[in-house]
Amino acid sequence: MTKEALFNQIQQKKSFLCVGLDTDIKKIPKHLLEMEDPIFEFNKQIIDATQEFAVAYKPNIAFYEALGASGWRSLEKTMQYIPKDIFTIADAKRGDIGNTSSLYARAFFDNMNFDSVTVAPYMGSDSVKPFLEFDNKWVILLGVTSNEGGKDFQFLESDGKPLYQHVMEKSSSWGSDQNMMYVVGATRPEYLQDIRKIIPDHFLLVPGVGAQGGDLEAVCKHGMNDHCGLLINSTRGIIYASDTTDFADAARSEAKKLQEQMAPMLENLK
Amino acid sequence: MTKEALFNQIQQKKSFLCVGLDTDIKKIPKHLLEMEDPIFEFNKQIIDATQEFAVAYKPNIAFYEALGASGWRSLEKTMQYIPKDIFTIADAKRGDIGNTSSLYARAFFDNMNFDSVTVAPYMGSDSVKPFLEFDNKWVILLGVTSNEGGKDFQFLESDGKPLYQHVMEKSSSWGSDQNMMYVVGATRPEYLQDIRKIIPDHFLLVPGVGAQGGDLEAVCKHGMNDHCGLLINSTRGIIYASDTTDFADAARSEAKKLQEQMAPMLENLK
Repeated sequence: MTKEALFNQIQQKKSFLCVGLDTDIKKIPKHLLEMEDPIFEFNKQIIDATQEFAVAYKPNIAFYEALGASGWRSLEKTMQYIPKDIFTIADAKRGDIGNTSSLYARAFFDNMNFDSVTVAPYMGSDSVKPFLEFDNKWVILLGVTSNEGGKDFQFLESDGKPLYQHVMEKSSSWGSDQNMMYVVGATRPEYLQDIRKIIPDHFLLVPGVGAQGGDLEAVCKHGMNDHCGLLINSTRGIIYASDTTDFADAARSEAKKLQEQMAPMLENLK
Repeated sequence: MTKEALFNQIQQKKSFLCVGLDTDIKKIPKHLLEMEDPIFEFNKQIIDATQEFAVAYKPNIAFYEALGASGWRSLEKTMQYIPKDIFTIADAKRGDIGNTSSLYARAFFDNMNFDSVTVAPYMGSDSVKPFLEFDNKWVILLGVTSNEGGKDFQFLESDGKPLYQHVMEKSSSWGSDQNMMYVVGATRPEYLQDIRKIIPDHFLLVPGVGAQGGDLEAVCKHGMNDHCGLLINSTRGIIYASDTTDFADAARSEAKKLQEQMAPMLENLK
């Protein structure tokens, strides 16, 4: 998907909501367990219920991998089911030497037709660049993560700048705002001002609004740019809003609530 | 597997060789493609041919994931085939927030019975610790990688020390030399002296001897400790030593050559 197409969708839906599909066999409503593929059935109903309000879906690959070959099949079916005009993110946090990253890219871009993959920066340029060789596909590189351990190394200062800023500065030359985004946790919206000086035009994928804390308004204030530039991810607050037969309705209602908070913020664009 | 059991195996086989199973459907001998599961068939013959000389096998997960559900099944069969007394490494370079890392740990440790997983450090403690909660299972954390891009961030200095040393210092307190190892690329054996000051007792997984350059003798001189402390990985030089029907014999012969170079180095232990 191009940046333009993503922005068009954001304008049409008046939303920059990404729904995380961290589908856990232990958490989905019990009545689904009788079906042939409970994981896919859950995802299908979540997608049906929320696609009016979501511009992106982000399956967390660990949840599928934990189920082995059958989980992988549920993921493939989920990807085939998501409408093609919605942006898809393989939240995989991969990153390896060049020829290996190429294979991960093939797995997610070619085989499963994801639009993007989250990638870890530690191994540097040749671990990231193979993902950038695919037309209209995206790398979403880890920048500042919202978990507690994010502090352990991402804020180590070198030449007066924290590591995450070095990562953004250096990596932004490997691609462009047309094929790279960055993960920036919402628990630290105050850093968005500094980040926007380094990468003013890139989209940021922002987890941590909702169950992980974080503040939508502060994130928009400091992080939005003239192409919106934000994808706000919500997972548990939407997909696990209810654990009974009404889970899809409950998910729809939570997604709608977030979309309604987002709509006015988009009016200030341009 | 315990550290003691690994060391026993090293002493018995007089080897600290790890064989990488980066099994690529495009590179394996053509006659295997007629079989039901060419990837597994290749691995099976490589394992049969090299297990006398190898103390560890390291499937590179990307190669299996690139084939989707069927690749995942080949990997499961490979894991069932590897003799239980040989150490196994899921070269996956995972790392995510706590609950997600737990799922990756479950996938590799519980479902597939790997002894260890390679993990990326960027997301810090809570992305690593879930892997340390399994008895006799290991994290192999990225330290210094041998790829060109390894220089991009791993050598950024902070408080007078490069990032990779911060990673080793901080992370070594999350576990112990009984459940953590580190990846240290062989292209930089001179760093092993500094590394041994920080983590004298840990095992190091050293890729880059062979096809990626590197020098076995220098690595041993600077990196060996009283429990050997080294697993030297070789992949392409062994598994792709020949691309015809004699590939297993050729792999055996290359593995034997490396083992014969390793044996005298182990005589100096203690």
